[in-house]
Amino acid sequence: MVIGLGPGPARQVTPEASQLLAEATDIIGYGPYVDRVPPSAARRHASDNRVELDRARQALTLAADGARVAVVSGGDPGVFAMAAAVFEAVESGEEAWRELDILVVPGVTAVLAAAARVGAPLGHDFCVLSLSDNLKPWSLIEKRLSAAVAGDFVIAFYNPASKARPEQIGKAFAQLRREAGERVVVLAKAVGRPDEEIVYTSLASVEPGDVDMRTLVLIGSSQTRLIEREEREPWVYTPRRAEG
Amino acid sequence: MVIGLGPGPARQVTPEASQLLAEATDIIGYGPYVDRVPPSAARRHASDNRVELDRARQALTLAADGARVAVVSGGDPGVFAMAAAVFEAVESGEEAWRELDILVVPGVTAVLAAAARVGAPLGHDFCVLSLSDNLKPWSLIEKRLSAAVAGDFVIAFYNPASKARPEQIGKAFAQLRREAGERVVVLAKAVGRPDEEIVYTSLASVEPGDVDMRTLVLIGSSQTRLIEREEREPWVYTPRRAEG
Repeated sequence: MVIGLGPGPARQVTPEASQLLAEATDIIGYGPYVDRVPPSAARRHASDNRVELDRARQALTLAADGARVAVVSGGDPGVFAMAAAVFEAVESGEEAWRELDILVVPGVTAVLAAAARVGAPLGHDFCVLSLSDNLKPWSLIEKRLSAAVAGDFVIAFYNPASKARPEQIGKAFAQLRREAGERVVVLAKAVGRPDEEIVYTSLASVEPGDVDMRTLVLIGSSQTRLIEREEREPWVYTPRRAEG
Repeated sequence: MVIGLGPGPARQVTPEASQLLAEATDIIGYGPYVDRVPPSAARRHASDNRVELDRARQALTLAADGARVAVVSGGDPGVFAMAAAVFEAVESGEEAWRELDILVVPGVTAVLAAAARVGAPLGHDFCVLSLSDNLKPWSLIEKRLSAAVAGDFVIAFYNPASKARPEQIGKAFAQLRREAGERVVVLAKAVGRPDEEIVYTSLASVEPGDVDMRTLVLIGSSQTRLIEREEREPWVYTPRRAEG
């Protein structure tokens, strides 16, 4: 099983995920996600970040031996998380792994939680990109940013920054400024958690230093706008109606 | 409150959504979604499809009178659902509506459920589009399809067809065939429900007649592939690694 734990709070974990986690014999994942699984009799195999393929092979090996394994991801396991790593491991791995029952259990992914927190910024067509260039060249990210602007999509960035590559988010903002002009930008950090922080800004004003690896970045389409309110946070939304 | 009910099964409704629904005094939504809310003392206001803005104004009027209103959507309320309609109604409506507390409660949206059902097709960057041209011209849809191909995104279609416009999905497939060549296509109908039906096909072979309004259409990037299995459905996945 490859199970999505949702964006953070227990109230956003689906009953399906909770029940399957309770039935697992082994829980495998990045340490902070394993720590979010409620106590149970399962063996726990916490690993470091960036060892997704090793983790997937470990899970498949245990499952082929008869264990009921739950690989856990934050958010949804299919969005920049463990599901693709598991199927990569299957494709390149032992023939017997293709006979396993693999169940992917969806969850609320970060972009949905961030959007809900600020209003309805995804009200129209949108793109979701990882800004990490661990697994793809920066030139492909540039090509996709240009395409997203050409299509006037709302854009969401996962993995927008890390200690190893703090400058990339600034490069992405600069490219978008050149190609799209001005746009609403929302930086949504740790949505639903005690240290949640939301910044309402724009391509002209955004500070790349305000973005860290726990931030979900939303960039509006040409139609995305703020509804201002007295002494309260604005709402951000993208109208459902659009012109050509 | 604007609440996402998830893709269909009760096991995919978050505890947060369930609790807030139980506390609501009024449930408002498209009939089939209102019918999915468990019995409670709340008044129920079911309405027809395509009256989103009327429904949003009704909800805001009741809320301004002190009711605890839950507007319900399938999937996630922010993805081609009621959240944007509610904020549109606020923007164009009474000043007092801006003082309301509006809580958007995220849910598992259809593309995540469909992707999980077949493997990990969203393993890389992706776009989500509505094919409905009720609220945007077809020329904008064409522009976005071209942009999605230029960016080599995985593409998901919501609202791919209806009785009023059965020919549009065929036009979209034809455009993608011209611009992208061959791609994996998955038609995921009624995922998680008794009448679920999954078709694994390709741009060359897909039959537009197999798509209806309950189908989520997934079109792979150039990298999306099948993992074939003996006497079982294949898995579909998009590798996390990509070249420029």
